[in-house]
Amino acid sequence: MKAYAMVLEEYNKPLVKREFDVVDPPRGEMLVKILAAGVCGSDVHMWKGNDPRLNLPMILGHEGVGQVVELSEPWVDVNGEAIKEGDVVIWDRGVTCGKCYYCAVKREPALCENRWTYGISTTCKEMPYLRGCYSQYVYLAPGTKVIKIKDKVDPAVLVSASCSGATTAHAFDMLSPDIGDSVLVQGPGPIGLFAVAFAKARGARKVIVIGGTKERLDMCRVFGADVVLDRYSTTQEERRQLILDITSGRGVDVAVEAVGHPLAVQEGIKLVRNGGTYLSVGFGDPNGTVTIDCYYDIVRKNLRYQGVWVSDTKHLNMAVNMVLSNIEKFELLVTDRYDLEDANKALSAMENRETIKSVLIP
Amino acid sequence: MKAYAMVLEEYNKPLVKREFDVVDPPRGEMLVKILAAGVCGSDVHMWKGNDPRLNLPMILGHEGVGQVVELSEPWVDVNGEAIKEGDVVIWDRGVTCGKCYYCAVKREPALCENRWTYGISTTCKEMPYLRGCYSQYVYLAPGTKVIKIKDKVDPAVLVSASCSGATTAHAFDMLSPDIGDSVLVQGPGPIGLFAVAFAKARGARKVIVIGGTKERLDMCRVFGADVVLDRYSTTQEERRQLILDITSGRGVDVAVEAVGHPLAVQEGIKLVRNGGTYLSVGFGDPNGTVTIDCYYDIVRKNLRYQGVWVSDTKHLNMAVNMVLSNIEKFELLVTDRYDLEDANKALSAMENRETIKSVLIP
Amino acid sequence: MKAYAMVLEEYNKPLVKREFDVVDPPRGEMLVKILAAGVCGSDVHMWKGNDPRLNLPMILGHEGVGQVVELSEPWVDVNGEAIKEGDVVIWDRGVTCGKCYYCAVKREPALCENRWTYGISTTCKEMPYLRGCYSQYVYLAPGTKVIKIKDKVDPAVLVSASCSGATTAHAFDMLSPDIGDSVLVQGPGPIGLFAVAFAKARGARKVIVIGGTKERLDMCRVFGADVVLDRYSTTQEERRQLILDITSGRGVDVAVEAVGHPLAVQEGIKLVRNGGTYLSVGFGDPNGTVTIDCYYDIVRKNLRYQGVWVSDTKHLNMAVNMVLSNIEKFELLVTDRYDLEDANKALSAMENRETIKSVLIP
Amino acid sequence: MKAYAMVLEEYNKPLVKREFDVVDPPRGEMLVKILAAGVCGSDVHMWKGNDPRLNLPMILGHEGVGQVVELSEPWVDVNGEAIKEGDVVIWDRGVTCGKCYYCAVKREPALCENRWTYGISTTCKEMPYLRGCYSQYVYLAPGTKVIKIKDKVDPAVLVSASCSGATTAHAFDMLSPDIGDSVLVQGPGPIGLFAVAFAKARGARKVIVIGGTKERLDMCRVFGADVVLDRYSTTQEERRQLILDITSGRGVDVAVEAVGHPLAVQEGIKLVRNGGTYLSVGFGDPNGTVTIDCYYDIVRKNLRYQGVWVSDTKHLNMAVNMVLSNIEKFELLVTDRYDLEDANKALSAMENRETIKSVLIP
Repeated sequence: MKAYAMVLEEYNKPLVKREFDVVDPPRGEMLVKILAAGVCGSDVHMWKGNDPRLNLPMILGHEGVGQVVELSEPWVDVNGEAIKEGDVVIWDRGVTCGKCYYCAVKREPALCENRWTYGISTTCKEMPYLRGCYSQYVYLAPGTKVIKIKDKVDPAVLVSASCSGATTAHAFDMLSPDIGDSVLVQGPGPIGLFAVAFAKARGARKVIVIGGTKERLDMCRVFGADVVLDRYSTTQEERRQLILDITSGRGVDVAVEAVGHPLAVQEGIKLVRNGGTYLSVGFGDPNGTVTIDCYYDIVRKNLRYQGVWVSDTKHLNMAVNMVLSNIEKFELLVTDRYDLEDANKALSAMENRETIKSVLIP
Repeated sequence: MKAYAMVLEEYNKPLVKREFDVVDPPRGEMLVKILAAGVCGSDVHMWKGNDPRLNLPMILGHEGVGQVVELSEPWVDVNGEAIKEGDVVIWDRGVTCGKCYYCAVKREPALCENRWTYGISTTCKEMPYLRGCYSQYVYLAPGTKVIKIKDKVDPAVLVSASCSGATTAHAFDMLSPDIGDSVLVQGPGPIGLFAVAFAKARGARKVIVIGGTKERLDMCRVFGADVVLDRYSTTQEERRQLILDITSGRGVDVAVEAVGHPLAVQEGIKLVRNGGTYLSVGFGDPNGTVTIDCYYDIVRKNLRYQGVWVSDTKHLNMAVNMVLSNIEKFELLVTDRYDLEDANKALSAMENRETIKSVLIP
Repeated sequence: MKAYAMVLEEYNKPLVKREFDVVDPPRGEMLVKILAAGVCGSDVHMWKGNDPRLNLPMILGHEGVGQVVELSEPWVDVNGEAIKEGDVVIWDRGVTCGKCYYCAVKREPALCENRWTYGISTTCKEMPYLRGCYSQYVYLAPGTKVIKIKDKVDPAVLVSASCSGATTAHAFDMLSPDIGDSVLVQGPGPIGLFAVAFAKARGARKVIVIGGTKERLDMCRVFGADVVLDRYSTTQEERRQLILDITSGRGVDVAVEAVGHPLAVQEGIKLVRNGGTYLSVGFGDPNGTVTIDCYYDIVRKNLRYQGVWVSDTKHLNMAVNMVLSNIEKFELLVTDRYDLEDANKALSAMENRETIKSVLIP
Repeated sequence: MKAYAMVLEEYNKPLVKREFDVVDPPRGEMLVKILAAGVCGSDVHMWKGNDPRLNLPMILGHEGVGQVVELSEPWVDVNGEAIKEGDVVIWDRGVTCGKCYYCAVKREPALCENRWTYGISTTCKEMPYLRGCYSQYVYLAPGTKVIKIKDKVDPAVLVSASCSGATTAHAFDMLSPDIGDSVLVQGPGPIGLFAVAFAKARGARKVIVIGGTKERLDMCRVFGADVVLDRYSTTQEERRQLILDITSGRGVDVAVEAVGHPLAVQEGIKLVRNGGTYLSVGFGDPNGTVTIDCYYDIVRKNLRYQGVWVSDTKHLNMAVNMVLSNIEKFELLVTDRYDLEDANKALSAMENRETIKSVLIP
């Protein structure tokens, strides 16, 4: 059998459609037919050559939902369900070693020193070649954590759980709002929308979103946001005042940064109450510095300024459950669908911010 | 090369000395020369045929410290240190799958559904045979988590970290006393002594031990116990009164059960303050029931009655650090050393409670 | 001004309508007109003389929502909002000292050694007499924690947050389900219904309820229960099998006991997965014992068996936010409304289990 | 009876010795004879007029240990012990309201919006005048949380628990090291020395201190530091390399900033491992800004940068237990004792950094 994939051969050049042999899965592996592959903002960064982890040529795509074609040996998913051919599955995009300090002693596998990621740290020069999701098929290596999806669900909708959903889950796993809390979300992209969903799912009472696009802010309302603030039609001081009004003058209990720009951090940490938490999730790449007043911004405020990096299987499981429980909302998130062959169009649209979430359908 | 091990071939019969071929370690494995093997209370239960997990013939011994003889491929320990031939190592006695609900979603690998244990769930019928520590050599399988020991330390002293130390660490990982807390430890055996050490290491102010043997209670004092109560020379009511006196009438903040008998539970939960925690660690085997008054013992008290089962690598690491930081105290714990060939004597001594901790030296 | 209240003068006898002088609030106090008073299951126990905390004659009623009539001095609510005459308020039924071990060192004010409760530990022999909610007015003492209600809401619906809501919140504050978890609720009364609501509000995926009344089980579905099991039309073994099927053979992650009977505990702890938590909330009074197998039920399972006793202001705040966010559902909870003068009818209906939640309207 | 106190009447001028009437304690208050008053670094800031909370004239001194002279009514300490005349006591320097969002909902009384502090936010213009510890007597107001000291202990040694000890305890209450962790402490003053003590008391394996004074670094060794680094005889790069060597190339698990200078923050956050925590405790006053790279310093590192502000009674209790358990070490901390009348000398010595901890003895 043959299959094609969209291959990144040279930075800043269009991905090239290449054909590969589809062989029997190597020992311990699983062959999966891709049903939907997510286009992530960081795919654009990789395409542009801004991510030092890459080894060309490679198949992009770290977000995937697929159907099991062939198992080399019996496989049980993370819930204890036996996986059979024909099952729909999603998987942790990162594969971890289980034996390093982070995995074994600190139980923070997202930080595993040996973690590798489908569609990021893989090359298609090596057997079995297909290790990215911009492809008709992918091979899942033995250490991959898989979740079998028993619900009938559109794979294109579920795929967002893979990366932005799981990473946002990581943030809320580190610091959950209490029931009744106020939560600020900065940036209404996929991470921000997941943040609204998680904040409401944990019982937050007032969820406020700051963003710059009306369509996205409207979508935040559908996801449960109580107040949305357009950063073009409000000043920073107006936003501050409004948030103080909502929070009896204190500031929010928790803020989630989903922008990836230092100006957001600079504004956001001042909107958190004393003793509150600022979760910075939006930086997938270096994007500058922020100036912090050690006394006023951090110590006197008793602030927790918390960075959030990638995710692990616990977080993927949270995100999958979130999507499956709110499927009608997350359908809205998928604004664009492309044939796999049109991956270059999808990347351009992402680069030009013409889409919230694009999905490739092989 | 040949090596011998002490093999359990028939329950309730003496272990038999058998010779095995020592081959090159299979792919991904490590061959380790045993320097010290601990004799655990549960070894006696296994010998007696009371543990349903066994598959005879098998080599007992789940506690071991050894020296690396040969590596089939490069191996890095859980701290990120490269392991070389000649290094002294200790390892997590349980090998977990990394992919099940407990490992991947709940991050509680001690509960892994596929966990297997050296010297418990292994048989010597299968290659590479040597999977227990009552042996001159052991093969460590690829998924084993290893800690390299850089300190000069008597292996016989360190070996106690493997099982009783790690399991006690699990209890204190679930619920750590606060600095200043009062802690009750029931039962001054290896788990109880580790519990005293952990309680003091976490800053407990008053550590009280109830036990029945003067030598053991004296050792508890060396480990830092502030008050020891002989259960033969005090009544239950006297002990209760004394503990209330020490704790301003409230009862202890935390109690650790390291006895394995329902009568200890029955006494102990009444000695915990409202809102406190009762950590039950001592039951390695079924040993009867306890009658709990739902209102008075649990709900009105706001009690946490917490079972503690085995341990994972985080806990082993805690226990290893505990022993290495208090090596002079833990030397006292090792009351008896036997030649490996005298394993049957060691088991009998353990059965007759003539020892606190016995260690086999191959 | 005069006001009347329903007074418990003799156990097992009807409450008596008595008139009291309404004076200016003493220093630091607030005079509140009762808008709705909840009838709690424990009111029946008190009426029957089964609660040792009482001091007759007294005005029952620890659940209340009211309107501020007069403030002796400025008062700010727990959110920092100034309270004015005419405001609608709810308050923590327990008043705590702030200075004991539980309040100041352990931050568990629900366990405060000096906690007293409106309508439970108060007598109407002492000034200012009106300290229970089966009354037209109540005086709130200086240490009372008050929440001002800015939403337009039916006071009869909100009143359930006071006791059953806050106590259930306490349980979920101790142990929150993770997003995606399975939760079992035993007993579909007010605590059970709040438990369903909290479980869903924290992101539980599968919420299963066991109960004995069709109407209550149907209401559980409205509150979000995914599976309801009638204990009259299913056997214990059938329920166990069904719950194992739903949870991939493991049992639920969290169970909440809201029955108050040992048989529920006996069944429930066996339905929790290894490493899971059993939250026992339902015992307001002594009601018998349970037999626990130390090894199988607790230690080998790594179970947390956690008692939950009353609540504090954090929990009241959680419950108030829960009701305000789900007001249509909680309207269903209030099955019966009585004039304050008919308090004896309401108590009888509660005793005969003819109601889920009854509320008195002065 | 008359008593004198050292009064701050004008900023930057010597404190003035003034005499006051000692009256019977007002209702709910306790009259305490000061046995020892600590001189805190922030006293110098107040003296210099750099703290906006002050209201002159006032008696400095927020750290005190004293002996009870007269009680206006019965008083029970936080452990439940009745306080009698003649008892030695220490108390939480901050008095909180118990009813605000921070006290009642978030259980973070250190952040209480109505918190006032002895010797900081008090004036001696108002009855009963004596509310600071640079005095022969102090009146403790009703809401003050008191700990009775039953051990025989030098009051001058215990006094350090009041402020630097309790504040450091707050840091370790927020984030406790695990047993075996590595901890970096920047700055070997009173907070830094307490940090070393707390890190060791929680089981940290490697405690590294960076400082600039040999005497202080030597004292850190006595307190348990494993490695001390003189910042004058090492470069920043040398320190980084050494810390990476100690921590298998990862960086420390936890760092505690006890310097109060942005350069320390800039250096310190780069020395923490991925997923680690940076606790900033040392800023008692505004002292500049730090430039943070959002991606490299925070997000990619998954860092927790946590500010720590003042303390509550839980923390005071931790600190008191810490001092009482390590009394010989903390004796070394008290490098200078002055007569109360020589308070100005003590402030000058503190200003000129000629002392670690000075104590005034009335």
